Amino acid sequence: MPNAILVINGPNLNLLGTREPEIYGRTTLDDVKAATTAQAKARGLAADFRQSNDEGELVEWIQDARASAAGIIINAGAYTHTSVAILDALQACGKPVIEVHLSNIYKRESFRHHSYVSPAATGVICGLGAQGYVLAVDAMADLLSKVKT
Amino acid sequence: MPNAILVINGPNLNLLGTREPEIYGRTTLDDVKAATTAQAKARGLAADFRQSNDEGELVEWIQDARASAAGIIINAGAYTHTSVAILDALQACGKPVIEVHLSNIYKRESFRHHSYVSPAATGVICGLGAQGYVLAVDAMADLLSKVKT
Amino acid sequence: MPNAILVINGPNLNLLGTREPEIYGRTTLDDVKAATTAQAKARGLAADFRQSNDEGELVEWIQDARASAAGIIINAGAYTHTSVAILDALQACGKPVIEVHLSNIYKRESFRHHSYVSPAATGVICGLGAQGYVLAVDAMADLLSKVKT
Amino acid sequence: MPNAILVINGPNLNLLGTREPEIYGRTTLDDVKAATTAQAKARGLAADFRQSNDEGELVEWIQDARASAAGIIINAGAYTHTSVAILDALQACGKPVIEVHLSNIYKRESFRHHSYVSPAATGVICGLGAQGYVLAVDAMADLLSKVKT
Amino acid sequence: MPNAILVINGPNLNLLGTREPEIYGRTTLDDVKAATTAQAKARGLAADFRQSNDEGELVEWIQDARASAAGIIINAGAYTHTSVAILDALQACGKPVIEVHLSNIYKRESFRHHSYVSPAATGVICGLGAQGYVLAVDAMADLLSKVKT
Amino acid sequence: MPNAILVINGPNLNLLGTREPEIYGRTTLDDVKAATTAQAKARGLAADFRQSNDEGELVEWIQDARASAAGIIINAGAYTHTSVAILDALQACGKPVIEVHLSNIYKRESFRHHSYVSPAATGVICGLGAQGYVLAVDAMADLLSKVKT
Amino acid sequence: MPNAILVINGPNLNLLGTREPEIYGRTTLDDVKAATTAQAKARGLAADFRQSNDEGELVEWIQDARASAAGIIINAGAYTHTSVAILDALQACGKPVIEVHLSNIYKRESFRHHSYVSPAATGVICGLGAQGYVLAVDAMADLLSKVKT
Amino acid sequence: MPNAILVINGPNLNLLGTREPEIYGRTTLDDVKAATTAQAKARGLAADFRQSNDEGELVEWIQDARASAAGIIINAGAYTHTSVAILDALQACGKPVIEVHLSNIYKRESFRHHSYVSPAATGVICGLGAQGYVLAVDAMADLLSKVKT
Amino acid sequence: MPNAILVINGPNLNLLGTREPEIYGRTTLDDVKAATTAQAKARGLAADFRQSNDEGELVEWIQDARASAAGIIINAGAYTHTSVAILDALQACGKPVIEVHLSNIYKRESFRHHSYVSPAATGVICGLGAQGYVLAVDAMADLLSKVKT
Amino acid sequence: MPNAILVINGPNLNLLGTREPEIYGRTTLDDVKAATTAQAKARGLAADFRQSNDEGELVEWIQDARASAAGIIINAGAYTHTSVAILDALQACGKPVIEVHLSNIYKRESFRHHSYVSPAATGVICGLGAQGYVLAVDAMADLLSKVKT
Amino acid sequence: MPNAILVINGPNLNLLGTREPEIYGRTTLDDVKAATTAQAKARGLAADFRQSNDEGELVEWIQDARASAAGIIINAGAYTHTSVAILDALQACGKPVIEVHLSNIYKRESFRHHSYVSPAATGVICGLGAQGYVLAVDAMADLLSKVKT
Amino acid sequence: MPNAILVINGPNLNLLGTREPEIYGRTTLDDVKAATTAQAKARGLAADFRQSNDEGELVEWIQDARASAAGIIINAGAYTHTSVAILDALQACGKPVIEVHLSNIYKRESFRHHSYVSPAATGVICGLGAQGYVLAVDAMADLLSKVKT
Repeated sequence: MPNAILVINGPNLNLLGTREPEIYGRTTLDDVKAATTAQAKARGLAADFRQSNDEGELVEWIQDARASAAGIIINAGAYTHTSVAILDALQACGKPVIEVHLSNIYKRESFRHHSYVSPAATGVICGLGAQGYVLAVDAMADLLSKVKT
Repeated sequence: MPNAILVINGPNLNLLGTREPEIYGRTTLDDVKAATTAQAKARGLAADFRQSNDEGELVEWIQDARASAAGIIINAGAYTHTSVAILDALQACGKPVIEVHLSNIYKRESFRHHSYVSPAATGVICGLGAQGYVLAVDAMADLLSKVKT
Repeated sequence: MPNAILVINGPNLNLLGTREPEIYGRTTLDDVKAATTAQAKARGLAADFRQSNDEGELVEWIQDARASAAGIIINAGAYTHTSVAILDALQACGKPVIEVHLSNIYKRESFRHHSYVSPAATGVICGLGAQGYVLAVDAMADLLSKVKT
Repeated sequence: MPNAILVINGPNLNLLGTREPEIYGRTTLDDVKAATTAQAKARGLAADFRQSNDEGELVEWIQDARASAAGIIINAGAYTHTSVAILDALQACGKPVIEVHLSNIYKRESFRHHSYVSPAATGVICGLGAQGYVLAVDAMADLLSKVKT
Repeated sequence: MPNAILVINGPNLNLLGTREPEIYGRTTLDDVKAATTAQAKARGLAADFRQSNDEGELVEWIQDARASAAGIIINAGAYTHTSVAILDALQACGKPVIEVHLSNIYKRESFRHHSYVSPAATGVICGLGAQGYVLAVDAMADLLSKVKT
Repeated sequence: MPNAILVINGPNLNLLGTREPEIYGRTTLDDVKAATTAQAKARGLAADFRQSNDEGELVEWIQDARASAAGIIINAGAYTHTSVAILDALQACGKPVIEVHLSNIYKRESFRHHSYVSPAATGVICGLGAQGYVLAVDAMADLLSKVKT
Repeated sequence: MPNAILVINGPNLNLLGTREPEIYGRTTLDDVKAATTAQAKARGLAADFRQSNDEGELVEWIQDARASAAGIIINAGAYTHTSVAILDALQACGKPVIEVHLSNIYKRESFRHHSYVSPAATGVICGLGAQGYVLAVDAMADLLSKVKT
Repeated sequence: MPNAILVINGPNLNLLGTREPEIYGRTTLDDVKAATTAQAKARGLAADFRQSNDEGELVEWIQDARASAAGIIINAGAYTHTSVAILDALQACGKPVIEVHLSNIYKRESFRHHSYVSPAATGVICGLGAQGYVLAVDAMADLLSKVKT
Repeated sequence: MPNAILVINGPNLNLLGTREPEIYGRTTLDDVKAATTAQAKARGLAADFRQSNDEGELVEWIQDARASAAGIIINAGAYTHTSVAILDALQACGKPVIEVHLSNIYKRESFRHHSYVSPAATGVICGLGAQGYVLAVDAMADLLSKVKT
Repeated sequence: MPNAILVINGPNLNLLGTREPEIYGRTTLDDVKAATTAQAKARGLAADFRQSNDEGELVEWIQDARASAAGIIINAGAYTHTSVAILDALQACGKPVIEVHLSNIYKRESFRHHSYVSPAATGVICGLGAQGYVLAVDAMADLLSKVKT
Repeated sequence: MPNAILVINGPNLNLLGTREPEIYGRTTLDDVKAATTAQAKARGLAADFRQSNDEGELVEWIQDARASAAGIIINAGAYTHTSVAILDALQACGKPVIEVHLSNIYKRESFRHHSYVSPAATGVICGLGAQGYVLAVDAMADLLSKVKT
Repeated sequence: MPNAILVINGPNLNLLGTREPEIYGRTTLDDVKAATTAQAKARGLAADFRQSNDEGELVEWIQDARASAAGIIINAGAYTHTSVAILDALQACGKPVIEVHLSNIYKRESFRHHSYVSPAATGVICGLGAQGYVLAVDAMADLLSKVKT
């Protein structure tokens, strides 16, 4: 378990690669999963990679992470901007959190500039596409190695 | 499938006719479904009429419409004012969207004046009760006939 | 008179079809008038279709409708967003009002998101082009038939 | 001319007594005119009492008052809240101005709480119905008698 | 008692005539009292004219007016802009209220544009100096005569 | 049924006692349930005590309460601040509602100061921990006994 | 003294039962006092129940509570929304504070939604009428018994 | 016609030279017309110089410019800050527009800092008095010579 | 009298030294009085040092200062942020005013950042504890010596 | 010196012609300098044309202009929107100031709509490209000739 | 070094005595330096008195103070209102800071009411002209003597 | 040059490791430089690592990067929140930009939540300390390799 990280993806991310490619690119969520899992493996970690469109289910996955994961990487999608429930779950979780966004949310509509996830996150990586997940795994591995020692 | 339109109803619309009739009238959702389906049939369309109280389920119905419907008529109820996830799903869907509200939301509390659905909709019809759905079917039929040609 | 509806068009709508066609389309105001009048006739109503660029004249037409029309369909154009005088006239009129906009005003500049007409209207139809007028005639005919009985 | 005061009424005030009597009462504008004129006469003044629904015409009447009136009593109706042009005309006029409203505008919708007329007025009287005009004539007579001496 | 009106003056109005005469003029509060009392007498009313710098005392005077006065004329001075307690007392009182200000508060600092008294007042008279009190007595006499019949 | 009250708990309240104890204390949700049920019993009521992380499920429980409960006690957790759907369900329900929060939400981040539940509630109790539920049962028992007579 | 609680009532609460009964009910302040005192007695506490319309006096009562009371129950009435002085006195007092309101302030005018008392209070109870005071005594008794042990 | 420019002046500009000379100077509108016309002639252009106090008339002049003028110089006066109708007319016109103000509007009341004309204008010249019109003619001549080539 | 300065302390300052010492320190108001009086004496001035929790009494002390003091040093405590009445009294007083705060109010809650006293004060000294009063006496002595010459 | 004008250019204007040509055009700063200098010469003036990316250096150039220039033409670039220091320097300078912008800043991002330069400028010219500098020289020459006489 | 204090002056303060004397008086910065240095000497301190118009240089002086000064007195001029960089430098410095302003910034334009320096300062002295620097030296000497013991 | 990346650090970052270590950690800027340079080398890039406290110098370094660097990694420190000049320089530069912050700026004071850099950046990495620079180098290397092909 100390080696497992939970990688959570929020609403509509299952459409990745088919939805508005001029914003999100043509990479699919399976591609992202593959890259994330590979990098986790390279860093000696297991990545539990999931997606849900349901806010309640996301909240429960985060709750479960208290027992089953060493850290959380989360791209909460649209719930980033509206979900206090996810914020509360992350703050209750007590594990390191890294927030990821495929696009640079600070370049988009103003309602996407505010994140309820950020106050619960150690770090934020956005605008770097699927590569952002890989970097987040790196960052998480580093965070966890510091915690361990 | 080119002839199918998805008619989506959001939270609490299942209570229609019993809930605050001074605002929404005494027509039930089944009445609305009957009127909508009849008008669709009259215009050569099939109407897939659904209701859910769950934001995640609404998001998934919209996602599915990419494969199964020619257009979407949506009354997102309370989620109209709070759901970026529904906005994202509609924008990813790529099908024509018509937003419907039974009451005139611009006459009610100020937090109901903003709609996250509108930026993803071709048109908006509100305040006309169940008749608004019938008009939306008309409008959608016209939109689809233009697209086809 | 019970069969007459007043259809009021505000500033710059006389330019329709020549002005910014990417927003408003190529249909002229005469085309809209023809479609509106035809639909009114089909529903057993007479449509008195007018346009003015003058706020005061629009106010007076609305005042006159108290005596001469059974209902008002209004596209107040730019005055939608700035005219309390039109709001007052509509509220004083006591006839059913349906607000129409050719474009989806909720997709445009933020100062176009607020309408002084909406609080005085039974219903709002926007973003459906000239077809919106035809639907408004339908809705008005239904409203009037309910009032009559 | 030193004895003439201009009494200006803005949009929809011609409907007085017929429009929303629960707010404005059943007195007609002719009743107001009669009371105003009588009080003016009692105070040795002539009252030029007018109404227009047209912002431009109101502006021109105010401009003309520079030559033809000793003071202005104005109920600008809905233009109170939207017309910088009337403010400019009043400030350019250089005559004493008293602002009148039939209803207490500070008890109504928040957009009626701001007046572009007030910064150009010596005094404001509101909420006192037609009697407010009579009091305004009194106040104007006093103001003018001070100016004369 | 039906003939008594309570005239309440708030903080710093005891300084009238000595304080910032360019805003409030050189009339003293005794002058205002004399003019107010005389006008009340002329209208068959007794005026109970008071001043206090203490919010709590003003609240209690208003409470007492329920038993001892037919109506209240109030210039709450600075408490106009800050006292919800005075608003509550006036709303609980159930007597007609006329709000008076010596200066035109809408021409001064923006924090003076909002009045907690106005929502509890039938009418507002401002900017007309001591004469405003005389007009308020007139208006109150008219209001009371309507109530009596 | 007249004796049943529905006690609804929103997202993350299942973590109670383990999550941020400096804010919420060490009492678990089972402890709260026990205290609530005991107090209900003492007052002659049955308490149906539930928790869900899912907004849609909460909406449906509230809808069901129309048939199965005499009143609702609700701690909507994070959805308090974001859910118009829950507000709509409560308003449609027509049963007395008491809102409870374990912590004093008015002492926390500003986005927790606004509640969509409050406009639909008879009363609000917050900051009193598990004891707040017991008090809410007392208050509900009193409300119901008044309604009955 | 450990057994005494101070129950403070702010401006206009002396009018209770006579003032706007549709909001506050017909119970008088003496009724509230009787219920509060009885409940205190039942819980082994003495209740010192007071009312003042004067902000300064309320401040001083709170200051005195440092020596003479074990806790404070306060319904600051209108000063709830405007008094930083009461906030400061409560914060300086160092005793547990429970804020009470008869009506649900979150359902009324927006300026009543903010409370300067809340940041100094352990808990808030509102909308439950006189029963709210009884519940506050219960809550205070529980708080004090925890402190004692 | 390629050589004609329309110079439009809005409300109260007919008072120029007599109105508030400390802001606008003593030059009359006829002086401005003379200077403007002379400069136009010097640059090989004809200037059609007009003034109106009526928003509707200004809108129609702008509409007419589509057929009769090569460019528009506009000082919309007070309508600068309130008229969406003029903005729409200018955007529909398709001719180059230069906005002029006699005074520096950014030094005056804050409601004069926003212009609905600016988004439709190529350039803005303000604060330079009548000379600003002459510079605007120069700028327009340059713009038109670029368009021609 | 030219040698007397009035030193006014607002609500809760009587608690100094006992209240929240981490913000205000352990110095008592008597200590501050001693230091202030000593410094005044050293500068040839008499200090009339007072404290009140009552806004009305503070207003009256300021009014009295017109006859009895050469200048005012004021720490209005919580009324700094809420009292327009004190602002008005200070502006009417016509004597030099220096505002003092023990703590740096710009480091505390945002509602403490605005002062109604500052616009009436020559200078402001805050954050320097009791020493701020001593410095204020120095500054006042300098101001008065300039006025005298 | 009476014949010298200082023409100041702020940050990034050295990139002119190479930077975002769709906004600023292809003219280089050397082209602007040449046109400005030529026009100055034609009007009997010398132009001291400078550019700096450093706010402090711009402040000092403006300070120096008190001794060395008859007037200032300034395009402060990005510092227009953020520099109070430049505003202070311009206000201290006491020379006539004309503000220039190449693009129409009122058509761009909202943070570019506010200028700290405008309150210190006689006039503003924007949106006219390099020609705006030539017009500014003309306007300055006129201003200076008025001052001289 | 324990005896040295750094006195930093921001942009345009070098103009003191020549710039807008109605706001800042006729004292020059050299006069201020002399008074400050003398007072420092009188208190056994050395004053390093500097001025710069450059934000970066001010930041570096503050950084250097970590090694070379016991405390900082700073009048950041216009950068007070715009510089987060100065705030960061002051917070990193770890030495006591006193903020000084010659004029009472709370009486001037609203953008001067906010200071980025205040959150990093122990105390603030403003509106007392050059004397404010002398008082700041006194206050700093007292602060340092407390720190030493 | 295709292999060089410019790594720019803004004000106060030279203090890293000594300044507020609870926020920024104990790593020095030299440590960051070493890690950044090493990672660049590992990815076949040269890193030109600089720091300045001067906004103008930062602007010029960005300008120079057009000729000398393939991409920019920037931690603009405090200027992130205030510098439109840096935004303009970055937008003019035309090279890929990655924004880095050591701390999670979205967890700090609200004025640090807005970044003028983000709209010009491809991606943002914050809250990950010195490791954030290493990840930024990785991300830049990936971006550049995509551009190259």
